[in-house]
Amino acid sequence: MDGAIRNCIFCKIIQKDIPNAIIYENEKFLAFMDRYPINQGHTLIIPKHHYNTILDMPQAIVGEMYSLVPKLAKAITAVINNDGFNINQNNGKSANQIVPHVHVHIVPRYSAEKVKGQWPTRKIAKMQELHDLAQKITRSIASENE
Amino acid sequence: MDGAIRNCIFCKIIQKDIPNAIIYENEKFLAFMDRYPINQGHTLIIPKHHYNTILDMPQAIVGEMYSLVPKLAKAITAVINNDGFNINQNNGKSANQIVPHVHVHIVPRYSAEKVKGQWPTRKIAKMQELHDLAQKITRSIASENE
Repeated sequence: MDGAIRNCIFCKIIQKDIPNAIIYENEKFLAFMDRYPINQGHTLIIPKHHYNTILDMPQAIVGEMYSLVPKLAKAITAVINNDGFNINQNNGKSANQIVPHVHVHIVPRYSAEKVKGQWPTRKIAKMQELHDLAQKITRSIASENE
Repeated sequence: MDGAIRNCIFCKIIQKDIPNAIIYENEKFLAFMDRYPINQGHTLIIPKHHYNTILDMPQAIVGEMYSLVPKLAKAITAVINNDGFNINQNNGKSANQIVPHVHVHIVPRYSAEKVKGQWPTRKIAKMQELHDLAQKITRSIASENE
């Protein structure tokens, strides 16, 4: 694909070289379940074109990417029944960006958690569970458009 | 102002009832220095219309709001000389949203910090320092447009 970077794990996900639990896709963006979820339903939105950080992206594309957030967050909430959610996007190693391909985290939160701003240790999820969940959320997105 | 909520501190900031160190303003959005900064240069972007969470906002307005982020983050980085930054937006008490009026955090980060995903305790800043900083960032934004 145009703009793909060799050895970028997110570029490989976009090219479907690495299987993933996708919940939404259009010409420019892909949304899929994070393999290392902070909570069930933890989703990433990425641009299909490779940009290291948000500073490398055209302003209009940043806007387009984030305009997907309410649509996807509503669908996730409808499925997961979370009480709230964080929208986080890290730029640079100093900001805890692990994969240097822009990604927006949607992290479902629960009142019982008492988050207090902590970003807890993440665990690897079972791919089958992610696929099952992705399917439910995909259906929920489709029902929004009906 | 249309859509202002009594007792909302951010609506009061928009109406200029509470003084603040503003770095950017247009018809729909206001950006100002956070009074409780995690790091120097910590900035908030808010819609002038009151929305509790991002789920209450029209999708296009969410996109417009976030399309300001690269512009403002570049100007902040030019002034503060930070190594990276987080873009965070919390929805609901369970997600640690303190003020129930949508706000996007731009938090400058430094390599020396070793953030590791922590959202450390915040301290109140001196208003004069915020104003001085806001002025520098405002100039930096203006110079981007030259």
